[in-house]
Amino acid sequence: MNDLKTALKESAKAVEGELERLLELEKAPEKRLIEAMRHAVLGGGKRIRPFLVMQSAKLFGVAEQSRLRAGAALELVHCYSLVHDDLPAMDDDDLRRGRPTVHKAFDEATAILAGDALLTLAFEVIVHPATHSNPMVRAELTQMLAKAAGAHGMVGGQMIDLAAAEAATGGKPLDIGGITRLQRLKTGALIDFGCAAGAALGRAPEHARGALKGYTHDLGLAFQIADDLLDVAGDEAKAGKKLFKDADAGKATFVSVLGEDRARDQANRLADQAVEHLSIFGKEADLLRQLARFVVERES
Amino acid sequence: MNDLKTALKESAKAVEGELERLLELEKAPEKRLIEAMRHAVLGGGKRIRPFLVMQSAKLFGVAEQSRLRAGAALELVHCYSLVHDDLPAMDDDDLRRGRPTVHKAFDEATAILAGDALLTLAFEVIVHPATHSNPMVRAELTQMLAKAAGAHGMVGGQMIDLAAAEAATGGKPLDIGGITRLQRLKTGALIDFGCAAGAALGRAPEHARGALKGYTHDLGLAFQIADDLLDVAGDEAKAGKKLFKDADAGKATFVSVLGEDRARDQANRLADQAVEHLSIFGKEADLLRQLARFVVERES
Repeated sequence: MNDLKTALKESAKAVEGELERLLELEKAPEKRLIEAMRHAVLGGGKRIRPFLVMQSAKLFGVAEQSRLRAGAALELVHCYSLVHDDLPAMDDDDLRRGRPTVHKAFDEATAILAGDALLTLAFEVIVHPATHSNPMVRAELTQMLAKAAGAHGMVGGQMIDLAAAEAATGGKPLDIGGITRLQRLKTGALIDFGCAAGAALGRAPEHARGALKGYTHDLGLAFQIADDLLDVAGDEAKAGKKLFKDADAGKATFVSVLGEDRARDQANRLADQAVEHLSIFGKEADLLRQLARFVVERES
Repeated sequence: MNDLKTALKESAKAVEGELERLLELEKAPEKRLIEAMRHAVLGGGKRIRPFLVMQSAKLFGVAEQSRLRAGAALELVHCYSLVHDDLPAMDDDDLRRGRPTVHKAFDEATAILAGDALLTLAFEVIVHPATHSNPMVRAELTQMLAKAAGAHGMVGGQMIDLAAAEAATGGKPLDIGGITRLQRLKTGALIDFGCAAGAALGRAPEHARGALKGYTHDLGLAFQIADDLLDVAGDEAKAGKKLFKDADAGKATFVSVLGEDRARDQANRLADQAVEHLSIFGKEADLLRQLARFVVERES
């Protein structure tokens, strides 16, 4: 696990550097927009999604610059979704990673625009020639990212989440199938993209893509169950955000439906399964294996 | 002008059909999201931006499907920007094209997500193999669209607009240079993309790209000045939206700075200039020429 922690730290630092380069401050009148984008993106985060891109791409010998840029693009999409999710009309959160959310540090209109600009930047980054010399690969990656982020991926999941919150208020919380479907879209789609992007960058063979898909499928659910567990049992200071939110909202989660013990068992089982999917790879996939354990054992 | 009106109508109908296909309703739980996206996109609009794509692409013999898809992608970006612009935290508009805005017909959270999903869909559409067989062309188009829509294009312009509104309240409205820069970004960037996309689809030679760029540069400003004129002198019923907004907000516009007469002269001069840029083309550019006159003479 120490290997992983070192690797995560190094990778997060490299991603931070790349994001910093992509969001250079200028003196233009739209400077405030760039500042809001930087607030949303820089300064922390485990950068697990870019780590997935970078580690999976490494399995196929992809060059550092390609891995970094694709990872940064994915992180930009993740960060934009947080900015919009935190808005008063959505989750209405004041705190994120221990700092004020964008609409608190700036204002609502700026937060909406900063989110929009981050999403747009993600596409600009991923499709740029610097990400891969082959335009076919860039086009494929872009299409995959749009699918993962759109109405039948992440945003679709956010929409189901809104509907679920309303249904919960009306005494009709989701069942385990509904929660699983919601989370597969809301958080799973981008996590799947992580390894799929690495494989696409490396023009990996079908069986390797399939193995990585199985891995992220299980990893994504394990990650979400762990998140739900942290929401009821975590330390607010470590989490850097408000906890007990789902419970307060009466929303169904893996924990509210399964109970803490069964949820923890399920997360562990999924982490084991995720590791099994990687059996076609050798030692070079060890960090991805350790990551599966890490996501269910983390404290924030 | 009758040729143009017929052509605009036919083109708008074709675009509407394409958008309808791209936004098919499903029975999934995220159906409400698709409904909100359809509300934002379908049912009217002059579709001037897709018309620019389609007419300029036609100059270079681009196939119908490519022209339509690229035009639809641009319209998706335009519509997403309207949805977010209309939000309470932004312009706070209740009416758009004579119908309730998305956050009025649905709710704020749904409007935020629908805008996000429309922007994402635009990239999915433009980068899709059905838009062009050559991935290099698709990647180029995608990059251009991201630039036009992002922090140094449309969203950057929206941000300057917000800042300008605040400055106006403080008694420091923009001067003519500031307004021009704002509008070049806020509305000009997408209009430029219209013809640039047509040229890219047709792999047009440099001098043709340059001519079209000159055309949309002047067309975009003429379009905006005409919009400002309509805002003070237009018919609210024909416009299908609230007028006098800029004046009420004390915002500087081309009209407030130049006065109505000089603004009208300037719009006409820009329309003439736009037409001059097309001198390298023959009769096949006549509709684009007529469009330049149309945008300054329209009543809505």
